Amino acid sequence: MSAVEVAERAALTGESFVAGRRRRGTAGEVRGVDAATGERLEPAFGLATRQDAADAAAAAAEAAPVLRAAPPATRAALLRGIADGLDAASGQLVDRARLETGLPQARLVGEVGRTSGQLRLFAGLVESGLSEGLRIDPALPDRAPAPRPELRQRRLPLGPVVVFGASNFPFAFSNAGGDTASALAAGCPVIVKSHQAHPGVAELVSAIVVEVVERLGLPAGTYQALLGSGREVGTALVEDPRVRAVGFTGSRSGGLALVRAARERPVPIPVYAEMSSVNPVVVLPSAATAERGRAFVDSLLLGAGQFCTNPGLVLVPSGEAGEPFVAAAAEALAARDGQVMLTEGIRDAYVAGRDALAGRGSRIAEGGGAERAPAPSLVEAAAADLVAEPALADEVFGATGLVLRWGDERELRAALAALEGQLTATVHVDLDDAPDDERSLAADLVIALEELAGRIVVNGWPTGVEVGHAVVHGGPFPATSDGRSTSVGSLAIERFQRPVAYQDVPEALLPAALRDDAIAALPRLVDGAVVLP
Amino acid sequence: MSAVEVAERAALTGESFVAGRRRRGTAGEVRGVDAATGERLEPAFGLATRQDAADAAAAAAEAAPVLRAAPPATRAALLRGIADGLDAASGQLVDRARLETGLPQARLVGEVGRTSGQLRLFAGLVESGLSEGLRIDPALPDRAPAPRPELRQRRLPLGPVVVFGASNFPFAFSNAGGDTASALAAGCPVIVKSHQAHPGVAELVSAIVVEVVERLGLPAGTYQALLGSGREVGTALVEDPRVRAVGFTGSRSGGLALVRAARERPVPIPVYAEMSSVNPVVVLPSAATAERGRAFVDSLLLGAGQFCTNPGLVLVPSGEAGEPFVAAAAEALAARDGQVMLTEGIRDAYVAGRDALAGRGSRIAEGGGAERAPAPSLVEAAAADLVAEPALADEVFGATGLVLRWGDERELRAALAALEGQLTATVHVDLDDAPDDERSLAADLVIALEELAGRIVVNGWPTGVEVGHAVVHGGPFPATSDGRSTSVGSLAIERFQRPVAYQDVPEALLPAALRDDAIAALPRLVDGAVVLP
Repeated sequence: MSAVEVAERAALTGESFVAGRRRRGTAGEVRGVDAATGERLEPAFGLATRQDAADAAAAAAEAAPVLRAAPPATRAALLRGIADGLDAASGQLVDRARLETGLPQARLVGEVGRTSGQLRLFAGLVESGLSEGLRIDPALPDRAPAPRPELRQRRLPLGPVVVFGASNFPFAFSNAGGDTASALAAGCPVIVKSHQAHPGVAELVSAIVVEVVERLGLPAGTYQALLGSGREVGTALVEDPRVRAVGFTGSRSGGLALVRAARERPVPIPVYAEMSSVNPVVVLPSAATAERGRAFVDSLLLGAGQFCTNPGLVLVPSGEAGEPFVAAAAEALAARDGQVMLTEGIRDAYVAGRDALAGRGSRIAEGGGAERAPAPSLVEAAAADLVAEPALADEVFGATGLVLRWGDERELRAALAALEGQLTATVHVDLDDAPDDERSLAADLVIALEELAGRIVVNGWPTGVEVGHAVVHGGPFPATSDGRSTSVGSLAIERFQRPVAYQDVPEALLPAALRDDAIAALPRLVDGAVVLP
Repeated sequence: MSAVEVAERAALTGESFVAGRRRRGTAGEVRGVDAATGERLEPAFGLATRQDAADAAAAAAEAAPVLRAAPPATRAALLRGIADGLDAASGQLVDRARLETGLPQARLVGEVGRTSGQLRLFAGLVESGLSEGLRIDPALPDRAPAPRPELRQRRLPLGPVVVFGASNFPFAFSNAGGDTASALAAGCPVIVKSHQAHPGVAELVSAIVVEVVERLGLPAGTYQALLGSGREVGTALVEDPRVRAVGFTGSRSGGLALVRAARERPVPIPVYAEMSSVNPVVVLPSAATAERGRAFVDSLLLGAGQFCTNPGLVLVPSGEAGEPFVAAAAEALAARDGQVMLTEGIRDAYVAGRDALAGRGSRIAEGGGAERAPAPSLVEAAAADLVAEPALADEVFGATGLVLRWGDERELRAALAALEGQLTATVHVDLDDAPDDERSLAADLVIALEELAGRIVVNGWPTGVEVGHAVVHGGPFPATSDGRSTSVGSLAIERFQRPVAYQDVPEALLPAALRDDAIAALPRLVDGAVVLP
């Protein structure tokens, strides 16, 4: 299907969504780009203005108290409605996303399913009542010297949330992705600053969400999406006093700029920015096999390396012990060709970062390259080099890996200590083959890595993040701006909530969700003990 | 007992506690002051240096991994040991606190009990396993198209926490107060920057905690306390890269300075600062009785008004409807004398703030005053004045109240909308007497106040915060720097934790607390459903 045909079929208008209506931005135009060819796609999209941002903030503020009062069942219906809409439109969504991102069809089909699956997972948790965070301390009228009042606590939505879509996941981390799903699950209105790398997908997804919002009779400000400049529209949204929190997935410079803008407001707000990670992998001697070397390259090159959880750095024993792993990895990588990258800007940054890294070590393998699909690359250096120059571990977004060779445990630990906070950290060990001291080191490393990362993997690869209740996709700064949270999985709902306590509020004045009969149907903590309905 | 006798009995040495040992600060000296007389008390206390701060940070960093690995039972034993120590020394502690703070004996006795009670409450929650935050998503090896890995999630301590003691609660918000208790419960080492308003109490309490730490064989850096300048030692602690979070209770300027210091670090850290609140009280016509007017004054003057939850602002119907409340409040306040305030600095700030406020409205009552016990005061203005000049609602720390008279619901709502974030917000209504529209307004107000405050009270007074599981002592900025949290009650433990997930980690490499047998004994979320042991 040609680009024009896709656009026609999708009936793309090039508009943003403000207060339930399509509105064409007048701050310039932008087009989607066929990642594989560089061809500029139909239609032209209008870029939103600061006024559009202000109007969206006003509509979101109007929606906030309505959503806050909406029962869990309503929020769940919204999430499920969006999930159904995405699945129903999957074919059309994937077609447009293939053009705009250059990502393979199978990956995109899977990503739509992951996105709708996450929405349904959150719906289930909301329906269970667990996301209400109920805590009850009953009154003790006879307590001496003073009676104890009754306290009922619940978690309430923070209010309007601005979500910045990511280029590398047009579905899972964009308009109806993780941050949007968790904010809506919490009861927060969402304004998405759509990513310009996939404007068509952003419009298609937004149209689905807006339709569901309208069908359920929810306020028009429940979900809005603006295509616009990050510097103009993005900053205006973050600075708007009606906005109460920000979710972001992208570059470190972009994330830190939002953090700065948010904290310089008269009333600062939280920014959850997922920024950068090289996802270190420690290979212990027993595991330095050719098979794992090839598996490392598979993980490294997946999606052209355009994953936040791409294993960009692997620590391999020096000398003979590490040779099978490194030789096989180099051989496997050399046999692979580059893949189309998401945007020209990302490609240019990749090529520059890849070549700069090669200058800091020795390039031990290079794959095949083309103009729009630059070659993957593997560079080797000594673990001690990282201690001398921690910038060696700066993320290169794309299919470049750094192999650091370590001589002994001391060198390995020094290299790990030189790393900044990470999303993931991985250990490879063959427990059947490893001698006792290596098994013991592996156990120690698991403990040590707790300080470094939000997710610890053993004998697997970090790329690919399960959507579930127990996952953490977060980590210490600068992997994220706030390591107390996760951007994937149901725990993410809590990042958009705050606790409120109600003291001695008579039944007649309590919000419906906190009255006796409503509470009895929900899981809760009563005097510190879990009570299930 | 004379001041000298108290000091002798307590064997005060004037030292700080670094790495398990007493150490005399060499950056100058400070003395406790008898709040009632201004007499300078024995002994002289040495002020800690920046080097002391660095040494404490080093010891805390050394303690951190040991505490992180300590089982819940060990953390609970620490909390209970401190609680027992406080109760055993209560007499001595209260004697010294009376001198240093001028607070009445009964209040201080109660405060020690509240402090030990909070430690025991946290111990119970830690023992229950709820504070571990376990979530398990079991592996699905047969899932298509790809198997699901196993994920185990738990909450880990952030690492060393710096706690700034508060002047107005020498026990409950100071060395072994809420922030220390919640940080230790989370498994974080604590360094307290002791408050100079009660250096003797700080030393006595710290000696108790240090003794318990030593007796349990915990690392010397588990608890440390430095008496020193906030600008020097406090800032040095917040800036130290080994410190991972900050708890603070005090002035807005002090809290905001720490927030700035923390966010300008290369690796920013969270600051939980509880700063200021006037705790607005809305009186509806049915409740504008003389009895409630007198009760308001009792709450306003409690502890010389030196509570974060002091009701400094009351919104009363204008005209005849509000007269019984206002007249009775004025009469009650005029009959009361001032009380000794905590420090000369607080007294001076109170007098200045009280008189400035009087200049902005009409003073309708003044109590008796003395040099060290300045007069309480009640000032009246129109609710509309607040909308024109929001600074009317700035906190005056002490026994001064502002009565704002509102004419209709629109005026009332406009005044509430002009307020900044608060710790508490209260509604008074007589549900038996109120007409339907007033009952309905009361219910609406409860909902509206959710956006304003962390705790909503009906027909009670905000002063006094229950220690429990359902309480929230927190609120939107600037009541606190982070409205997603509480500084009182067991939810506070979570502010010093972060989630970490373990993916496919074999039993042999898992931390002991995450192995199958350990998990079976704990409450947990399995695939999103609560499972109790």
